Amino acid sequence: MDFIDGGITAVKGIRAAGTACGLKKDNQPDLALIVSEAAATAAGVFTRNVVKGHSLELTRQHLQENARFRAIVINSGNANACVGPEGLEDAREMCRHAARLLDCSAFEVLPGSTGVIGQRLNLEKIKAGITQAADRLSGSRAGGREAARAILTTDLVTKEAALRLDLDGTAVTVAGMAKGSGMIHPDMATMIAVVATDCAVPADLLREMLLRANEKSFNRISVDGDTSVCDMVLLLANGQAGKSLQPGTDAAARFQEVLDAVCISLARQVAADGEGATKLVEIRAEGLATREDAYKIVTAIARSPLVKTAIFGEDANWGRIITAAGYSGAKFNPDQCDIYIGELQVCAAGRALGFDEEQAKRILRQQEILIRVVLQEGSAAEHMWTCDFSYDYVRINGSYRS
Amino acid sequence: MDFIDGGITAVKGIRAAGTACGLKKDNQPDLALIVSEAAATAAGVFTRNVVKGHSLELTRQHLQENARFRAIVINSGNANACVGPEGLEDAREMCRHAARLLDCSAFEVLPGSTGVIGQRLNLEKIKAGITQAADRLSGSRAGGREAARAILTTDLVTKEAALRLDLDGTAVTVAGMAKGSGMIHPDMATMIAVVATDCAVPADLLREMLLRANEKSFNRISVDGDTSVCDMVLLLANGQAGKSLQPGTDAAARFQEVLDAVCISLARQVAADGEGATKLVEIRAEGLATREDAYKIVTAIARSPLVKTAIFGEDANWGRIITAAGYSGAKFNPDQCDIYIGELQVCAAGRALGFDEEQAKRILRQQEILIRVVLQEGSAAEHMWTCDFSYDYVRINGSYRS
Repeated sequence: MDFIDGGITAVKGIRAAGTACGLKKDNQPDLALIVSEAAATAAGVFTRNVVKGHSLELTRQHLQENARFRAIVINSGNANACVGPEGLEDAREMCRHAARLLDCSAFEVLPGSTGVIGQRLNLEKIKAGITQAADRLSGSRAGGREAARAILTTDLVTKEAALRLDLDGTAVTVAGMAKGSGMIHPDMATMIAVVATDCAVPADLLREMLLRANEKSFNRISVDGDTSVCDMVLLLANGQAGKSLQPGTDAAARFQEVLDAVCISLARQVAADGEGATKLVEIRAEGLATREDAYKIVTAIARSPLVKTAIFGEDANWGRIITAAGYSGAKFNPDQCDIYIGELQVCAAGRALGFDEEQAKRILRQQEILIRVVLQEGSAAEHMWTCDFSYDYVRINGSYRS
Repeated sequence: MDFIDGGITAVKGIRAAGTACGLKKDNQPDLALIVSEAAATAAGVFTRNVVKGHSLELTRQHLQENARFRAIVINSGNANACVGPEGLEDAREMCRHAARLLDCSAFEVLPGSTGVIGQRLNLEKIKAGITQAADRLSGSRAGGREAARAILTTDLVTKEAALRLDLDGTAVTVAGMAKGSGMIHPDMATMIAVVATDCAVPADLLREMLLRANEKSFNRISVDGDTSVCDMVLLLANGQAGKSLQPGTDAAARFQEVLDAVCISLARQVAADGEGATKLVEIRAEGLATREDAYKIVTAIARSPLVKTAIFGEDANWGRIITAAGYSGAKFNPDQCDIYIGELQVCAAGRALGFDEEQAKRILRQQEILIRVVLQEGSAAEHMWTCDFSYDYVRINGSYRS
């Protein structure tokens, strides 16, 4: 398998477009339309927040009640959440409008919204945007990129990934796009991502595969520990490549690897572009008795503002790392704790090492940083991607609504 | 009961001093000595972090193995943590040195350390500091303030509280000092605090009372969700007022109220002076089925960087408040959620209210802000104090070690 230059439109039979319909200021793109020429099976994972956005609720409903899908429509700039029964009705109207233009049923459209909570959608703008996007739909590289751009909120860069693999002589593509930035936290569908493939995959298998990929990717990133009411990952499989997957086959296993890789790539892009982030940080915990313990440790470190500000300051303050591990709830003997920043060991058997501060600085100056906490309780390990915590995080979030 | 102007030396028979022994730069005070003329009973609560500072470990040991205490010695600038067996030996030497000067046993001294992790204490400096502090010991207002100042790390202000009450014709005082700032989180002994009283209280009762007061005060504050390896609250009772408490009496109940009030005052001072804080924020959750649910909600909101940056930005972004409640793990119907910022209701039955943004700004411009989340599940409530999240938090923690 090889990453190729491309976004979601690298998948056969997928067209996309993004437009600016006026929900965001300054004519920023805020409406994305992704359309499959042929009806596709679909799967989704959703936020576990008990508060859920209305568009997301409708997408869940459509996935439960329908089997084949033609389009995904996502607006940014407004979360369509906490506005009462009208919110669900607004989401329905988004779908109905897209369905009319695409000549399909409203149940075949999956809606998403992301942005500010508690404000009614301006449906007139949204519908004009959908009309415009439908006119611009394109299977070109640019079409995918436009759509990827239109779902961003405080993200600085678009996030796309595409992989092609040969399955028994047939070229199959898996590709997707994501938006993240703030409100990212593991163990939920942690942001909005749309992934598509031109392989044919039965809905049950598709759902299983998405859950597995999600566990390794979007559930392993943390920006600030918050989780939003609009987070979801959607996966479409339209069969246009002429290859069909069956459970338990070698082809299915290889497809899973590629799906994992696309999701991991998107997840890492989300972590690297966390609000105000200057660095992508991978946290690993090794040598725990259970994966749960390892998970507790990487989660505590990844969400510690003290660790994250130290990394922003390029300060090898490993005391904060062992501190976070210590309050994580994981069981371990602190006197057997080794800590590495990149290749540099800074703590051995729970004790300070006299390490080279200059070398530490050189490591921390890099764009990608690996932090490893190694214990002697067993052989379980976990990892998580996160980012540092900078002045810009405060700037962005101190004035997001205004 | 009335708050009086004073610190820990307002308690009869308590003398204190603070000095600069050179652990901190720029001749900043970094060593505090608190001495009781008469041997006192003592109680402590300690961090639940599995990593524990060596000085704290020794204090726990002394409290277990000894019944009467004469002194507390605390240094700032160095946590005396994660340095191996030498750390415990260094803490012992701190106690031995203080004991020699005070003519008591080393077991009667309770040591504490706070600051950077992973560096050996400079014992020569510490011992010179203890000698100097012992020379300066004073029962004056200034003596208490000096000690309160010497335990600070990144705190901006000293934290002191003193209350006097009349118990059956005898004037009894409870007074204390605290340091906090970063690494503050509930459900642990969350920082360093020293409280003393001139009432006589049996050790068992003293411990019970401290646990109760701690639950209402230091376990109800959160600055950044991190908890340190050096956190502890110590309480001394030296009996110098000539009044003795017995369990189950009216006097004991009244004493508990005063102890609670002193601890709550100190805890609120800690929250208000959280690293980079510009505001003290009280979060309340009401109308939950259980206190656990209410606690989950106030904790999630109090540690949400998105909520805290919005408050710093004086932005009535209640969507982040309902979002944090939603992912807290508490059970509630989001369609019955009311949210108030100060007196202003911003969300009713889970839906946006068209509130006056100018009024919201006026409320958020204040130094103390109350946020209430009101549900309809039952009658359980909880509260927590926290602070906002500013640029200064990042500045302070991006370069703490250097």
